[in-house]
Amino acid sequence: MRLNEIRKDNPLIICMTNDVVKNFTANGLLALGASPAMAEAKEEMDAFLSVAGALLINIGSLHPSRVEDMREAVKYANKHQVPVVLDPVASGASSFRKTFCLNLLNDFNISVIRGNASELLALLEETSMKGTDSRTDLNNIEIAKRAHEQFGAAVVITGEVDTIVQDNRVALVKNGTPLLTKVTGGGCLLGAVVASFVYNKVKPTLEDLTEALATYTVASEFACKLPNGTLPGHFAVHLIDQLYEVTEDDIVANQRVEEV
Amino acid sequence: MRLNEIRKDNPLIICMTNDVVKNFTANGLLALGASPAMAEAKEEMDAFLSVAGALLINIGSLHPSRVEDMREAVKYANKHQVPVVLDPVASGASSFRKTFCLNLLNDFNISVIRGNASELLALLEETSMKGTDSRTDLNNIEIAKRAHEQFGAAVVITGEVDTIVQDNRVALVKNGTPLLTKVTGGGCLLGAVVASFVYNKVKPTLEDLTEALATYTVASEFACKLPNGTLPGHFAVHLIDQLYEVTEDDIVANQRVEEV
Amino acid sequence: MRLNEIRKDNPLIICMTNDVVKNFTANGLLALGASPAMAEAKEEMDAFLSVAGALLINIGSLHPSRVEDMREAVKYANKHQVPVVLDPVASGASSFRKTFCLNLLNDFNISVIRGNASELLALLEETSMKGTDSRTDLNNIEIAKRAHEQFGAAVVITGEVDTIVQDNRVALVKNGTPLLTKVTGGGCLLGAVVASFVYNKVKPTLEDLTEALATYTVASEFACKLPNGTLPGHFAVHLIDQLYEVTEDDIVANQRVEEV
Repeated sequence: MRLNEIRKDNPLIICMTNDVVKNFTANGLLALGASPAMAEAKEEMDAFLSVAGALLINIGSLHPSRVEDMREAVKYANKHQVPVVLDPVASGASSFRKTFCLNLLNDFNISVIRGNASELLALLEETSMKGTDSRTDLNNIEIAKRAHEQFGAAVVITGEVDTIVQDNRVALVKNGTPLLTKVTGGGCLLGAVVASFVYNKVKPTLEDLTEALATYTVASEFACKLPNGTLPGHFAVHLIDQLYEVTEDDIVANQRVEEV
Repeated sequence: MRLNEIRKDNPLIICMTNDVVKNFTANGLLALGASPAMAEAKEEMDAFLSVAGALLINIGSLHPSRVEDMREAVKYANKHQVPVVLDPVASGASSFRKTFCLNLLNDFNISVIRGNASELLALLEETSMKGTDSRTDLNNIEIAKRAHEQFGAAVVITGEVDTIVQDNRVALVKNGTPLLTKVTGGGCLLGAVVASFVYNKVKPTLEDLTEALATYTVASEFACKLPNGTLPGHFAVHLIDQLYEVTEDDIVANQRVEEV
Repeated sequence: MRLNEIRKDNPLIICMTNDVVKNFTANGLLALGASPAMAEAKEEMDAFLSVAGALLINIGSLHPSRVEDMREAVKYANKHQVPVVLDPVASGASSFRKTFCLNLLNDFNISVIRGNASELLALLEETSMKGTDSRTDLNNIEIAKRAHEQFGAAVVITGEVDTIVQDNRVALVKNGTPLLTKVTGGGCLLGAVVASFVYNKVKPTLEDLTEALATYTVASEFACKLPNGTLPGHFAVHLIDQLYEVTEDDIVANQRVEEV
């Protein structure tokens, strides 16, 4: 399994993510066992990507002044065969975001797209302004399959049930807790966790991705059962702790994963 | 009352706030029941403001590269009849900050100004370099009345007693705890809470604003009475929890509000 | 001792630091008793530095768009005789970072450099790409002495044992806990704490610096002994609390400091 490999290798994960969640993301990856670096400048992307295990691009606070830095980072990730995870936060909320994502997907190799159903739908050009919330009346498997086919990337759609498509295979992960939606960055940190689990694998397997999702969601279930864990302030603290504590045995014993 | 309306409607609150408090602000609003979005780019402000309930402008880490984005956001807030809350952090600390605020107040409709006494005084051009601290020897009611008259916005001055002026009426809120000054963003989050309580109301009532202040300060009183709640690390965690837990009944039972 | 002076004077510490740790840094300094301000714009650096006690420059998320702001801040710090602490995060990871630091050290007066051994070595031009991790096989005293001689600044090298060189004297601080490396900003906050302890002293003494290190590391030892304090989420909360609680007597009783 990958979790113990992460803890042994401490892969460097370059996170170009939004300002709201940088601290939470860095603490979550450190707890997991990865080595996060929140580098920002295109001037140093060749150097950083040459030694990185993965690159996360999260557009939660996308700004024109960061577009070129992000594109250069992806360019060097491709050059150095470093997997790229794209988190298209609120991609349906503005044409600025949607265009950025589609250009990125068109111009570079992206290994994994991680979003909710409406964000993926926006990229498939079938949704209108939706913000960051999921539409629960959509068939997530169909959306994930179509995005996988259209963009050639593995696709992870999170929601009450998480849907993963890779190599034309489909898996569902049924763990998790609604508390994850009460803490800012609950989804963004998951994107960074996915990046950690695919380190050094430009083409991760379905199993790599289900393990990433199962690890994060099992840890979240443990967190919400701890003292005051159903309150968002304490839940966030416990989640960091549980990413540090959770073991491969815990995941095997608690994951509710099925291939469909 | 507004609290249950917020929890039912989950209004989208666009927060253009300083880098130090983005995470704390987003978690506080999520706990309260609002939907925060920390959008930054002028390219998407028309889209975001067309569906937003309120806009917060907080100048805690104001930078020239953000001025135009912020002004465009306020422009589109005015276009879409979205209330704007201005938090003029340290407005007396540099002419750069003061000029930005005065231009904003002059060029656009601002629904609420939320600051401490010295920040409001700076805008009234009667103070010198003061940083972010309150001057306790000032008559806050007079300052708030004059700012209300001069800028045409509701005014909230926070301090040991919070002073609110709207429609030429004055209310005092006497809840709160000094712990709020030991956590960074204790005031900034309040500005975002005020924005949540005035969602969809370009002209909020005095009652909307007193309820915002009472909710936040009653939650803070609850937080500091919980285990280790008088220590700043734990207080911040408990405050998020209490914004999630506090009820309208709690507020009615505990608020010390009077119209003067 | 300096700790009680900080708590009495609440010196204004201007922190130009990376986006990941701004919140944690601000909360740590507030807990300690200092007044942090995360100003960013060169337009207001003359005003802020004219009343500041110290300036921290941390390059953890250095970007070309911030270089001029940082250099202007240091220029005005020098003008107003405000001590500058440089934290050369990952200075060996890219020539962009290294060049920025060397130019700063060449062009301005820097009071203290605070980094790990590989970051200091990078500035001495004897290391290659290393990221942010320490090389444990280096003689930190020799590195610190050479950096002190070359740059004319006090040097603090943190690691399992912390090494401090000032006025050609050398002190070791043997307190601390590995938990500090499991929380993002564990080192960055220390840089800000050092800045707080040298406020108003362009040329701090060896004793000022050892007290800064002892205060931080003794607080960290207290934090990891509290409930769940060996888990990174809870440790971070306890550390803020302990920076608020720790007394000069605690430091004297628990510090393991020696001049060598």
